[in-house]
Amino acid sequence: MPIDMTPVGVVRSTLRNRRNAPRQAFKGAPEATLEIDPVFAPALDRVTSGTELIVLTWLHEADRTVLRVHPMDDERIPLTGVFATRSPDRPNPIGLHRVRVIGTGPPTSIHVDALEAVDGTPILDLKVAMKEASDA
Amino acid sequence: MPIDMTPVGVVRSTLRNRRNAPRQAFKGAPEATLEIDPVFAPALDRVTSGTELIVLTWLHEADRTVLRVHPMDDERIPLTGVFATRSPDRPNPIGLHRVRVIGTGPPTSIHVDALEAVDGTPILDLKVAMKEASDA
Repeated sequence: MPIDMTPVGVVRSTLRNRRNAPRQAFKGAPEATLEIDPVFAPALDRVTSGTELIVLTWLHEADRTVLRVHPMDDERIPLTGVFATRSPDRPNPIGLHRVRVIGTGPPTSIHVDALEAVDGTPILDLKVAMKEASDA
Repeated sequence: MPIDMTPVGVVRSTLRNRRNAPRQAFKGAPEATLEIDPVFAPALDRVTSGTELIVLTWLHEADRTVLRVHPMDDERIPLTGVFATRSPDRPNPIGLHRVRVIGTGPPTSIHVDALEAVDGTPILDLKVAMKEASDA
């Protein structure tokens, strides 16, 4: 049963290609802008500076046929199933990013502090992050 | 540009309908089984008891037209954009769950400790959880 999604927006970033994208935000991802489709403006009510968000993206450059990888592209690490890694290459390449909102612009632009996704990456969903350790 | 995904598996749970599902795992979700399609067996290499996973699901019972909600169904809380909440109702209803693997069964069943998703919920992706606070 296939599932159809329509992106709710797109990432705007100085990261232009996947090779330059750091693997994790704490390795030096740049600020970025989430350009949300204005039709979803009501869904952004109460997203303000300081809000911690989970951003789900569609890693459109990923290889969906890959099932095992060397984690962090380090061949000294044995081949590992992609479900036990954070590899972007996987059957349904959904990216998972935790960001802090540093500003908003009209009508539906969200500026965030650090996002390891290349320019043009489709955005599937936004959720508020939770403080609890149980947060995903 | 629509995006097509095929589920990689399905949740098996004693939770039979959404009304009975707790909103967050720490409110008392039951153990559950992730029945992964055997074609993806290699992607599970190194998923073992004790592995902490992020499970991404497709909340197939969600209302995709909802853009604002009262968080936690509490009408005393003002209407809030779904992107600032964890409501299951949202344009692309992807569920985000952090679980611990408590066992595996042949060929591709993964038993997990607590999952707030109803029986039959499609699984889109699994990722290893990270210990860092920056983990999404």
